[in-house]
Amino acid sequence: MIIFENDYSAGCAPEIMERLAASNLEQTTTYGKDDYCKRASQMILEQAQLPEGEVFYFVGGTIANATATSYLLRPYQGVLCAASAHITAHEAGAIEAGGNKVLTIPSEDGKLTPDQIEQAVMAYRNDHAWQQLVEPGMVYISQSTENGTVYNKAELEGMHEVCQKYALPLYVDGARLGYGLAAPDGDVTLADLGRLCDMFYIGGTKQGALFGEAMVICNPAYRQGFSNMMRHKGAVLAKGRLMGIQFETLFEDGLYFRLAAHANKLAMKIRGVLEEKGCQLPFDNRTNQQFVLWPVETIRQVEQQYQLYDFGPHPSGLHLARFNTSWYTREEDVDALVADLRRWL
Amino acid sequence: MIIFENDYSAGCAPEIMERLAASNLEQTTTYGKDDYCKRASQMILEQAQLPEGEVFYFVGGTIANATATSYLLRPYQGVLCAASAHITAHEAGAIEAGGNKVLTIPSEDGKLTPDQIEQAVMAYRNDHAWQQLVEPGMVYISQSTENGTVYNKAELEGMHEVCQKYALPLYVDGARLGYGLAAPDGDVTLADLGRLCDMFYIGGTKQGALFGEAMVICNPAYRQGFSNMMRHKGAVLAKGRLMGIQFETLFEDGLYFRLAAHANKLAMKIRGVLEEKGCQLPFDNRTNQQFVLWPVETIRQVEQQYQLYDFGPHPSGLHLARFNTSWYTREEDVDALVADLRRWL
Amino acid sequence: MIIFENDYSAGCAPEIMERLAASNLEQTTTYGKDDYCKRASQMILEQAQLPEGEVFYFVGGTIANATATSYLLRPYQGVLCAASAHITAHEAGAIEAGGNKVLTIPSEDGKLTPDQIEQAVMAYRNDHAWQQLVEPGMVYISQSTENGTVYNKAELEGMHEVCQKYALPLYVDGARLGYGLAAPDGDVTLADLGRLCDMFYIGGTKQGALFGEAMVICNPAYRQGFSNMMRHKGAVLAKGRLMGIQFETLFEDGLYFRLAAHANKLAMKIRGVLEEKGCQLPFDNRTNQQFVLWPVETIRQVEQQYQLYDFGPHPSGLHLARFNTSWYTREEDVDALVADLRRWL
Amino acid sequence: MIIFENDYSAGCAPEIMERLAASNLEQTTTYGKDDYCKRASQMILEQAQLPEGEVFYFVGGTIANATATSYLLRPYQGVLCAASAHITAHEAGAIEAGGNKVLTIPSEDGKLTPDQIEQAVMAYRNDHAWQQLVEPGMVYISQSTENGTVYNKAELEGMHEVCQKYALPLYVDGARLGYGLAAPDGDVTLADLGRLCDMFYIGGTKQGALFGEAMVICNPAYRQGFSNMMRHKGAVLAKGRLMGIQFETLFEDGLYFRLAAHANKLAMKIRGVLEEKGCQLPFDNRTNQQFVLWPVETIRQVEQQYQLYDFGPHPSGLHLARFNTSWYTREEDVDALVADLRRWL
Repeated sequence: MIIFENDYSAGCAPEIMERLAASNLEQTTTYGKDDYCKRASQMILEQAQLPEGEVFYFVGGTIANATATSYLLRPYQGVLCAASAHITAHEAGAIEAGGNKVLTIPSEDGKLTPDQIEQAVMAYRNDHAWQQLVEPGMVYISQSTENGTVYNKAELEGMHEVCQKYALPLYVDGARLGYGLAAPDGDVTLADLGRLCDMFYIGGTKQGALFGEAMVICNPAYRQGFSNMMRHKGAVLAKGRLMGIQFETLFEDGLYFRLAAHANKLAMKIRGVLEEKGCQLPFDNRTNQQFVLWPVETIRQVEQQYQLYDFGPHPSGLHLARFNTSWYTREEDVDALVADLRRWL
Repeated sequence: MIIFENDYSAGCAPEIMERLAASNLEQTTTYGKDDYCKRASQMILEQAQLPEGEVFYFVGGTIANATATSYLLRPYQGVLCAASAHITAHEAGAIEAGGNKVLTIPSEDGKLTPDQIEQAVMAYRNDHAWQQLVEPGMVYISQSTENGTVYNKAELEGMHEVCQKYALPLYVDGARLGYGLAAPDGDVTLADLGRLCDMFYIGGTKQGALFGEAMVICNPAYRQGFSNMMRHKGAVLAKGRLMGIQFETLFEDGLYFRLAAHANKLAMKIRGVLEEKGCQLPFDNRTNQQFVLWPVETIRQVEQQYQLYDFGPHPSGLHLARFNTSWYTREEDVDALVADLRRWL
Repeated sequence: MIIFENDYSAGCAPEIMERLAASNLEQTTTYGKDDYCKRASQMILEQAQLPEGEVFYFVGGTIANATATSYLLRPYQGVLCAASAHITAHEAGAIEAGGNKVLTIPSEDGKLTPDQIEQAVMAYRNDHAWQQLVEPGMVYISQSTENGTVYNKAELEGMHEVCQKYALPLYVDGARLGYGLAAPDGDVTLADLGRLCDMFYIGGTKQGALFGEAMVICNPAYRQGFSNMMRHKGAVLAKGRLMGIQFETLFEDGLYFRLAAHANKLAMKIRGVLEEKGCQLPFDNRTNQQFVLWPVETIRQVEQQYQLYDFGPHPSGLHLARFNTSWYTREEDVDALVADLRRWL
Repeated sequence: MIIFENDYSAGCAPEIMERLAASNLEQTTTYGKDDYCKRASQMILEQAQLPEGEVFYFVGGTIANATATSYLLRPYQGVLCAASAHITAHEAGAIEAGGNKVLTIPSEDGKLTPDQIEQAVMAYRNDHAWQQLVEPGMVYISQSTENGTVYNKAELEGMHEVCQKYALPLYVDGARLGYGLAAPDGDVTLADLGRLCDMFYIGGTKQGALFGEAMVICNPAYRQGFSNMMRHKGAVLAKGRLMGIQFETLFEDGLYFRLAAHANKLAMKIRGVLEEKGCQLPFDNRTNQQFVLWPVETIRQVEQQYQLYDFGPHPSGLHLARFNTSWYTREEDVDALVADLRRWL
């Protein structure tokens, strides 16, 4: 069985495993105050052009999002996001666990527009006292999105502008940031993120690390107390260096982006055959997640040899299915899939 | 200016004010352990046919809903409700303040159906581990609803059945329970509520009391620890007797239902002229809230003399407006409004 | 049975009941935006000399404290208070319900000193990273305290100074503020509170109101979003005017202070006989709560005719008991008690 | 510089690193549903003699404690623990983040007694309604404790008995469980824990794992919904197998206990010289944490060559210092320390 079900079913890039093994018996300071973390953070801040920024390390995306949200919001505020956003659709209520409401906005492709943000703010401001809507307190977007789509630089600038206008922090969930930044049709860089949003995280778990996400504070106003919030959430790993070692390896010579480009390239091979065969492709994207609408029988047939993810019935009557490539996906496996699909479809 | 903006702009039924004044200098036990509360609770439990039940008093609906939800759910569960439900649309995130997610279901008229509950439960159960949906842990409905509509007995029995099947407590927000039970086309009684739901509250604030809601625990399994949850939420009034006095007055001889019937009757006069004039009425209901879709100019004209509630632009291009009657609404004011509408429309 | 058990066992000052009755059928704006609330707030702000301040109304002390604490703290901070503070000893974990830790400091008499605040801040600052103490984020004191003691102006200035030094908001729980301000040995005024603390509330429930506490925001930096926090906590009463009416009555001509002085005077009569008879009085105070250490037999004897509050065994081997007077306590009842005590002790 | 500051400054036992590397490119199911986790859990449950039990994996102790506490308590309940307990002294308010109060009990050595539990329950039960204490809802102990002390089997049986009597779940924080179970004067086994408590965790982070704690549910009543609570807290690691691999390695042939015994043995060498030199040793214990009361000058001298942990001034006027050994501590380093101490003291 070849697995395309998700992008985190294997361990980590061999370069990282080597470094973890090599440093294993060293004794260092704990809780992320070690030299590995310092060096990794410096690299990231340089690449994001954030001399006043700061980096904090989390073991996973849900706790990263929950901590950032609790930090950026007051308890009575809510977070604006697409209805498909990971924080509302897939995180078991972890945002609400912190007391904040998730304010969802419908979206066809998983992206939001400045107009939608403006409308949401206006709806709140026009609320008569007794309606008691929740005040929008921040904007959450993901890059690439849960649907594999990508904000380009102009779109991100638009989001930045509307967020500035209404004093809303802009937060980017980068669980799949590398795949987004390395998208063949993308034009956003780490430095753009550093310039245009207030906080974002660089996903490691799905992009070559054993585990770990690097939260980048772009707006220096949000450094104060952030580590306290992490500890309050139980989000600090005792041996923080484990993440420093990983992110140092990923960012010292571009490994992070090479791994992502590899996955995107393979994903586009899959998309190629799907387009060639005239399948319905619900999202227009060039990253490592490729979605297709198929009759359930097609899914069952493909599943005999390839593990994909079946989201179940779609309003169209078809099923929504997803192929995920990752840094570890082998080209020969994709080629086999493509050949089989060409034959089967 | 005659006010139809809401149903809680005046104080309380004169019978209640008299009793409050008469008992004012008595010294009694505090925190709802006094004889007034005991008598009021006994009356309510008798009328709801709940010998094993218990009644707790709250000062308002939001804190009542927040307490019941925190009590009935585990932190990781969510509450199923209509998208128009008061707890999600009008309570400033008070449910999320307790850590629980609100799981909204679209509804045309503000009511839910057993099928919708079943589908929501199935969506959760069919979720693959990693999708991490929030587990539905209770069902919230309101009677009458935020749109003025009413569940009839058969519908309530259907909701009861599906909730039993999936072990979901059924909770009824009765901020406007009297108006719902007294609806000319309604067939639900307090005893039906006692039999069919696990917990409901009898709204006082909008129905003749100065303030106060009586939470009725129908399912004896939910008595244990409920008062602790109230105190933890800061929901216990020191001079609890104030609510005992009020609910005793409302329930000892049917005053509660007479006041509600009065408001419903006047609301139907307003509905009558709206129907007569062919206005678009978005909801089919006979309770004290009457909604109408009007051009904004009509609203502005009517507002010269009558205060209504303008919900703003509606997808139809019209505005959604609401007339609210209450226990204190005077028949002559309604007659004047009807005459004017007949002339203006 | 004459009741000295607490100071909120009766309704409200007759002047207030009259006003509530007189205004009962008026229709007004809701949620505290009515003219009664505006006038009451203006009076309070004038007397506290706070032209930039703002007043919000709560129905009770626990929800008032919980809201202020959630507002003044970030989630990862804690509130410094005496071990006897109401928020930790008597409010069922309502502060923790908002996610914050209560950081208690031992105190003999229920008061804190600037030195204690300084030490707590230093302990946090000297904490090595991995100890993970909770950051002190505000200071809570009560006036008069749970033990009936009172901060004088010099003490309050000392607290103000240390709080300014460490950027800690100073919050005063004034559930019994009137009794504290009217203490014969007190020298603190409303204007002093306005000048020296960031937020305080004026207790109504225990001091002549039917219910209600007026939260005074002294520091204009804390106005933004406070009403949102109230709604998020379910702390807003629909008919807010009920509290406006009460506080207008209490503050328009000094009724609040007259009622408090009455209770204090009667309390000092009780203290007088206790001192005369050489009883052990654990606290040196002149407000409406008088504590005494008595053999349990004495308590049982007194309880035959007078209801006091027995806190149970004390380290001394005696029981700690409390006599509470209130605005409604009758002088003849106190005189009877004094005569009996003189005979019995 | 030789480090005795804590027990988690290095990576993991080489056996574990080898396994992580060997399995690195395997693709497995995620979120702890893989075969590694299954095998590790089975081993643990067999050794704890819990055929009806279940094991869940956490990345660290704070999030493990926070999740267990939120799970075992209702929101209005509190957790009874020693004042020195990790959850109250070192976890940045993570328990309160879930809404629960920590109810501390003074303890000389970090251990609790059944009498103390009984007194706390009685204080709550005897509380008059208006005092509003927080209901004790569970008991937290640690083995070995924060002070290095250990409950023996008889003491644990006593705790079990009192917890059963008052229906309080007994929870054991086993961040240093191995050191506790391997203590030369200990007589508690994994099977005893399985029999006597409701939930405990086996600490990996401080005892040979790279990271990870295995939460063992002993009482089958506490399995339902536990994984939902984990996800709600953001506590589930995507690549759960990483912990399965580690715990399988630790438990398949007793590695866990050998590593702990090694650290304990070296700690006793340090204790030996401290006793020999007549130092004040505040705690009577034989595990990997050894505390001593020293003049600050002695600490400064020792710190020239050995990193210890200085807790700062102690009521005795001395400083409280700690030497920590771990699985990775080298015997030659301890011997050098011992020789130096013998010379210096």
